[in-house]
Amino acid sequence: MSMPTPANPDYEDAVRGAVLSMPAAQHLGFDFARIAPGEVEIVQPYRPELTQHNGYLQGGVLGALADFAGGSAAGTLLAPGWVNMTIDYTVKLLAPARGERVLARGRVVKPGALVTVAAADLYAVDGGEQSLCATALVTMRNVKLAEA
Amino acid sequence: MSMPTPANPDYEDAVRGAVLSMPAAQHLGFDFARIAPGEVEIVQPYRPELTQHNGYLQGGVLGALADFAGGSAAGTLLAPGWVNMTIDYTVKLLAPARGERVLARGRVVKPGALVTVAAADLYAVDGGEQSLCATALVTMRNVKLAEA
Amino acid sequence: MSMPTPANPDYEDAVRGAVLSMPAAQHLGFDFARIAPGEVEIVQPYRPELTQHNGYLQGGVLGALADFAGGSAAGTLLAPGWVNMTIDYTVKLLAPARGERVLARGRVVKPGALVTVAAADLYAVDGGEQSLCATALVTMRNVKLAEA
Amino acid sequence: MSMPTPANPDYEDAVRGAVLSMPAAQHLGFDFARIAPGEVEIVQPYRPELTQHNGYLQGGVLGALADFAGGSAAGTLLAPGWVNMTIDYTVKLLAPARGERVLARGRVVKPGALVTVAAADLYAVDGGEQSLCATALVTMRNVKLAEA
Repeated sequence: MSMPTPANPDYEDAVRGAVLSMPAAQHLGFDFARIAPGEVEIVQPYRPELTQHNGYLQGGVLGALADFAGGSAAGTLLAPGWVNMTIDYTVKLLAPARGERVLARGRVVKPGALVTVAAADLYAVDGGEQSLCATALVTMRNVKLAEA
Repeated sequence: MSMPTPANPDYEDAVRGAVLSMPAAQHLGFDFARIAPGEVEIVQPYRPELTQHNGYLQGGVLGALADFAGGSAAGTLLAPGWVNMTIDYTVKLLAPARGERVLARGRVVKPGALVTVAAADLYAVDGGEQSLCATALVTMRNVKLAEA
Repeated sequence: MSMPTPANPDYEDAVRGAVLSMPAAQHLGFDFARIAPGEVEIVQPYRPELTQHNGYLQGGVLGALADFAGGSAAGTLLAPGWVNMTIDYTVKLLAPARGERVLARGRVVKPGALVTVAAADLYAVDGGEQSLCATALVTMRNVKLAEA
Repeated sequence: MSMPTPANPDYEDAVRGAVLSMPAAQHLGFDFARIAPGEVEIVQPYRPELTQHNGYLQGGVLGALADFAGGSAAGTLLAPGWVNMTIDYTVKLLAPARGERVLARGRVVKPGALVTVAAADLYAVDGGEQSLCATALVTMRNVKLAEA
């Protein structure tokens, strides 16, 4: 779909700042490779402390990345003074997340005033090859911050 | 529902060992308060590095705990030599996870030979008061380890 | 959880009327056995036109019943002049829905001003015996009807 | 993703026959516009008996169509003698399904030997214009029919 023009001209800094300042985001250790209207790409480097037994990123970590990717994509369309929070996410784990990093691509599926639906596809990058390892749907609630 | 008798008499040690030896579980820092046939309770202490901006546990952390709780509950019914892995989970975030710890209670909804469905309810414990902060459905796949 | 007192004293008639007047509800042919604050029970009689090949109720029919049950349970808590609509539902099909009827029990998990989360458990009744055949989570959006 | 070559050269007839012979499919009254390896398009004409109050197709109907579309897409990759059945589906209702028909496009996201994940996007066609009205993820289980 064609994305609406972001209501916040500083959407890129707003999303980056809001997400990467979260302790839980820093605990995973990802960064953004791209922030565009209605779309983001998160890069999560391989870290041994995020794995299950066989050295692949654990499913709960992939779910958290999907949530961050979908929520961040939705966040690019928020007006100044608004924030969003996750209502729910459904994540399907499709293949082992092996390799040097995971790319989590979030995109808005349906923007709304109060509720926005996004999707996320996660790709494991192993020796430069990308393979789909998880897919998710994420629903976000948009909330106007109280006036000061 | 009434739970089947675990096929593995050592189910408690098996689940505890399999889950707590995962680096991703140690990275969250939870423990089990209870492991029974088809049911577990996970205790996740408050840790600042798992929070979002307002000091509550972040949604991706709650989703990961729901996955661990549902998957562990399902794991109590596995026969020796079998393991399980998450096919998917859907988590609904219901209220801020504020307080000193989160209890994630997993239970088997429908055990199966190859696919088991579990649920998880997460309670934030704040000043001793429990309040529901998330609920989830988790589908697990059961796999027999290859013979040596 | 303890349910709030319904904001609409006529909640039972309101839910029954709103749901059973829907053509899609009549096309399935169910009725309510119970409507209480935050809880409903739907009774769907066996009908051959709702089955898959083996004579059991088809999965999409079970999903629709779960949506109606969860949404109706949430609807009991609406204030006069408000309606609700489904944001999403996730349904896990657990066992064949064989027998003379299906009971779909919906209950509110978390009431909210704008978003309410409900759950539904579906039981196939076969020769008087009930067995769980599906479970679902349903998220509803609450909307105030425009003033006349 | 690139789809595997169907293991059944008669996949198109197999899917069409298996799905359209279901009473529950006939009760909705849809047909297939396209059946290709890993992809299908279902056409559901507007029918007043499938609507909610305002004349739009009801959410449970959309969920059922999403299930049929995802499951049929997955079914195109089954080997002869295999069938599939829905493990679960999650459907997000995005906009009113108004207009003369709904197109439900299913596609395989990840084929597997025993578990296949598919997605479905539903478009309402109103005066020839298509607009996304629902999106879903569907997990199917593949089962080999018992030998005669």
